[in-house]
Amino acid sequence: MLACNLVRYGIPVVILDDRPDKTSAGKADGMQPKTIETFKQLRLADSLLRNGVRVYDISFWESTENTPLHRKGRQIHYPDHLVGAADPYILLAHQGIIEEVLIVDIEARGVRVTRNSRFVSCSRSPDRQQLTITYEDLSTKTERAISSEYLVGCDGARSKVRDFIPGAKLEGEITNASWGVLDGVIDTDFPDLWSKVAVRSHSVGSILWIPRERNMTRLYVELSSTEGERVDKAKATPEYVMALAKKAMAPFKLEWKSIGTSLADRVVNQVDKIEWFGNYVVGQRVASHFNDEEMQIFIAGDAGHCHSALAAQGANTSMHDSFNLAWKLNLVCRGLAKKSLLATYEDERRKIAMDLIRFDAEHCSAFEQGEAALAKNFDDNIRFISGVGAEYSRDLLTKVQSDPVTNGALRPGALLVPAKVTRYIDVNPVDIQLDIPMLGQFRIYVLVPDLTSMKRFLDAFCARFKDSKSVLGRVSARAQQSYNEKPRGKAASDDYIQPQRYTTVSHLLTLSLVTKSSKLEFEISDLPDVLQQSRWTLYLDDAYEKPCTDKWVGKLDSDQAAVINVRPDGYVGSLSLWSGKEGDKAADWVEEYYSSFLI
Amino acid sequence: MLACNLVRYGIPVVILDDRPDKTSAGKADGMQPKTIETFKQLRLADSLLRNGVRVYDISFWESTENTPLHRKGRQIHYPDHLVGAADPYILLAHQGIIEEVLIVDIEARGVRVTRNSRFVSCSRSPDRQQLTITYEDLSTKTERAISSEYLVGCDGARSKVRDFIPGAKLEGEITNASWGVLDGVIDTDFPDLWSKVAVRSHSVGSILWIPRERNMTRLYVELSSTEGERVDKAKATPEYVMALAKKAMAPFKLEWKSIGTSLADRVVNQVDKIEWFGNYVVGQRVASHFNDEEMQIFIAGDAGHCHSALAAQGANTSMHDSFNLAWKLNLVCRGLAKKSLLATYEDERRKIAMDLIRFDAEHCSAFEQGEAALAKNFDDNIRFISGVGAEYSRDLLTKVQSDPVTNGALRPGALLVPAKVTRYIDVNPVDIQLDIPMLGQFRIYVLVPDLTSMKRFLDAFCARFKDSKSVLGRVSARAQQSYNEKPRGKAASDDYIQPQRYTTVSHLLTLSLVTKSSKLEFEISDLPDVLQQSRWTLYLDDAYEKPCTDKWVGKLDSDQAAVINVRPDGYVGSLSLWSGKEGDKAADWVEEYYSSFLI
Repeated sequence: MLACNLVRYGIPVVILDDRPDKTSAGKADGMQPKTIETFKQLRLADSLLRNGVRVYDISFWESTENTPLHRKGRQIHYPDHLVGAADPYILLAHQGIIEEVLIVDIEARGVRVTRNSRFVSCSRSPDRQQLTITYEDLSTKTERAISSEYLVGCDGARSKVRDFIPGAKLEGEITNASWGVLDGVIDTDFPDLWSKVAVRSHSVGSILWIPRERNMTRLYVELSSTEGERVDKAKATPEYVMALAKKAMAPFKLEWKSIGTSLADRVVNQVDKIEWFGNYVVGQRVASHFNDEEMQIFIAGDAGHCHSALAAQGANTSMHDSFNLAWKLNLVCRGLAKKSLLATYEDERRKIAMDLIRFDAEHCSAFEQGEAALAKNFDDNIRFISGVGAEYSRDLLTKVQSDPVTNGALRPGALLVPAKVTRYIDVNPVDIQLDIPMLGQFRIYVLVPDLTSMKRFLDAFCARFKDSKSVLGRVSARAQQSYNEKPRGKAASDDYIQPQRYTTVSHLLTLSLVTKSSKLEFEISDLPDVLQQSRWTLYLDDAYEKPCTDKWVGKLDSDQAAVINVRPDGYVGSLSLWSGKEGDKAADWVEEYYSSFLI
Repeated sequence: MLACNLVRYGIPVVILDDRPDKTSAGKADGMQPKTIETFKQLRLADSLLRNGVRVYDISFWESTENTPLHRKGRQIHYPDHLVGAADPYILLAHQGIIEEVLIVDIEARGVRVTRNSRFVSCSRSPDRQQLTITYEDLSTKTERAISSEYLVGCDGARSKVRDFIPGAKLEGEITNASWGVLDGVIDTDFPDLWSKVAVRSHSVGSILWIPRERNMTRLYVELSSTEGERVDKAKATPEYVMALAKKAMAPFKLEWKSIGTSLADRVVNQVDKIEWFGNYVVGQRVASHFNDEEMQIFIAGDAGHCHSALAAQGANTSMHDSFNLAWKLNLVCRGLAKKSLLATYEDERRKIAMDLIRFDAEHCSAFEQGEAALAKNFDDNIRFISGVGAEYSRDLLTKVQSDPVTNGALRPGALLVPAKVTRYIDVNPVDIQLDIPMLGQFRIYVLVPDLTSMKRFLDAFCARFKDSKSVLGRVSARAQQSYNEKPRGKAASDDYIQPQRYTTVSHLLTLSLVTKSSKLEFEISDLPDVLQQSRWTLYLDDAYEKPCTDKWVGKLDSDQAAVINVRPDGYVGSLSLWSGKEGDKAADWVEEYYSSFLI
């Protein structure tokens, strides 16, 4: 994810992978609603949506001394009134499918993964500007070195890169709870095979069922509880885990079938039918630092946080670490933002990691306690689990007004909320939160319900974008030069996206107008210059049920406007309301936001 | 489209193409709502939807002696209340992109197009069972022969195959109207560049603007009207057509830019910037026959019908010819249906072709007359233009009850109407008209709002499917044998679709239950055997606004059921309502429908 983002932004990267080949099965597999949105923003979601399995509900089963296994309840996983996600489901596809989508995109932009290459060490050059990265080419057993400005370790819980960040250690608890994981095609008369299922068996322990692509099911089988003793790793074989699962699921049948339609079904034993097997010990730990003091060495993903796999958070949180870091690196590498922008990475993502392990500890314990506790745990945390509830605290990038806007759903530090609008230029109905492609640029949405009565506001506000002495004018000119010299990574598919439509005013930002004035009332040529240039991001706020404006900032009067600064990763930076006379003031306010971190 | 369908159904095909390579630009490019649905049914729509441009509206412009060019009006192309399509737009992507999707699918199933191969002749073997097809290998200039049961000419208006169908000739009118067609990137200040635009210029003639993928626009430029003299082909050069267009669009600027971002823009002249140029003379003609008497030689597409390109009907109608023919050929080739089933191809598709040229003649004439006439022509024909209004007359496959069902939208001979339901097994919300993959099988939808009060009906109705002496039982057994011997063409992507889930009861049909009973009220194990086997096609009719049942057949009482026979191409064959006691009678009625054409 990090490499894919950086390659798109036009930042040269070397991707070292110690493995000889792509991931072929198993591992992380659940994409949460926010992650699905992320892949949609990257225009990479199609094949995942086509090939993945969607889980919309969760059912709870229990057996006790006196009652055989029975369903205790069932609930919608992501209720609309709580989560409000455009894709309210978990999308299951094995990690290799997800990686493949990113790799294909990277390769389409001319960059390849360097495989068989194990990171060894990192040292700083005498001038302290560059890092020297040493890695071992495992195929030739030779050591090689690269000189680089930055190093990011996305190298898992046992991260080697983390060792080179002074004082960075995983801190937290490791429990005795351990789990076995099995992917395979299941033959069963258990009725809820295609829901997510949490089973609590009085005799054995807990099992989590997750439906998978290609007719498979993943079972997480508890090998020991926090109170019990940890199961010896040698004992936790697939056979052992399968036997436990069978015992827990009785009286239902539980067998594994061959994957595909091979006749070998009759001769192969059960264990050989498993596509993937893994086991792990639960711990909740977060690294004390996500970067070094010089802000050149970073860690992302499991290198920064470990926890259980039960709530399908790992890959999601990890990809969003990268998603957060990539655009900041781009702006700093290009000399357009202050280096202090990079410090917001740890501020923001370490906070999420802490939120995550806190939740995960509660979630694991609720799993032990059974249906009522688990259902409550879901209810309490469902926005966070879905990813749409991850919120950043106030920092350089997240500004709260003294007079906050509270009538709508948008908040600084939170994601844009999905809304339907009509694109003015071709009257295509679009999802406004997804319509502008991610090019590493900010988005400024100007919500002006009534164009006629707010003409003066718009004229004054827009004039600032033409002012070469303003911060935006100045940095935009430098951005233009930077992207001329180091253009964004292009793929043939860009011809169908036409990214240049979104950087007409500046490579730093896309300007967008959202209005309730009807298409019949105005022509593009009636608008101020910079909005004419932004013709692909003029939106008619004509949704019948819940207009975007009302949803985002609450109903506005005809002499009111809202301005929203949205970060490249889709988080709201700041938002504010303005009256008709305040066009200049609103422009000042925008300038102030960007001048705090742009150079 | 024909080959893609047949390969999927498991029928061996040879595809002869006289061209050396794939289509690289231009030609047919507009997919209508019904065609988009067709590609969705084939699970092939993703890349088209991602890469195509969507046109939702049409605007009308006019100039007269006294008034310069101005907008006369604008309207939504496919208003929901008239068309009700799930995808209410024209999807523009050049013919090569569409062909590529089909070719990739064919190749994924192990079949390749035989290129450089020009059809020469066709003769019948002495036993009159087989055809001998002769073609020229253009790369080696040698003649080759194939022996085949069937020959289908999808070889355009100048079809060679048509010559081998005795008495088959294109009949109809050729007018003097001729048009030039240009694909390119346009530089203009004309404001409606991204709508479909009909321009009527007093001085020059008519122009039709169609937005295209990759920032292009297609212009259809009228070279002469029906009243005038036909423009000499030698005169109708791109330069001539571009000059006409510029004159018609004045005072707006109209220039062509280089495709892509090449700097060559400055030196290349305008004509070299056109990606594709074509011109044609308008005629409305339909072949007198679509097949020979022996029903072994067929024509499809332009070979059977020619007309103007203005309403973007050609490729759409042609693909639906093939879509109609393929599943019939499959059933007859497998010996499961009577040969007379093939006669319904001409009955159904020649009727549509006649409807089409009648509409096209009116459409061309309305184009001449200007905005009011054209807007009216659109209004009157919009369902037909979209493709969802194409209806088949009563024949072997389309049965009308003596007591027709008229409270809902479904009619024998018309398409299923889109509706949202929830799949029982995994509570995924789905579009019911698309959810069952197209495997060449019929679909039988049983709509039972109240499972409890209709238990007796369902038991009796479902029992018939287990009866080996019934028509369906008998033919299903033969179908099983046939598909064992000649399985459907498989692609790796099928692993993600799991087609075998839909042929559990029979390879001839997929049985489906639609109920308003809630998920909490019943388990799959409560249902009759054949519905338990059909677990992937049990639907909860829980749409908040307009339930599927109400939409399809009107509100039903709790002691009522509806049964709908849907053909493999998605057209309703027959439908009927039943009371709780009539399970056996409903089964008889189903048997009767299938026994009229199955062997």
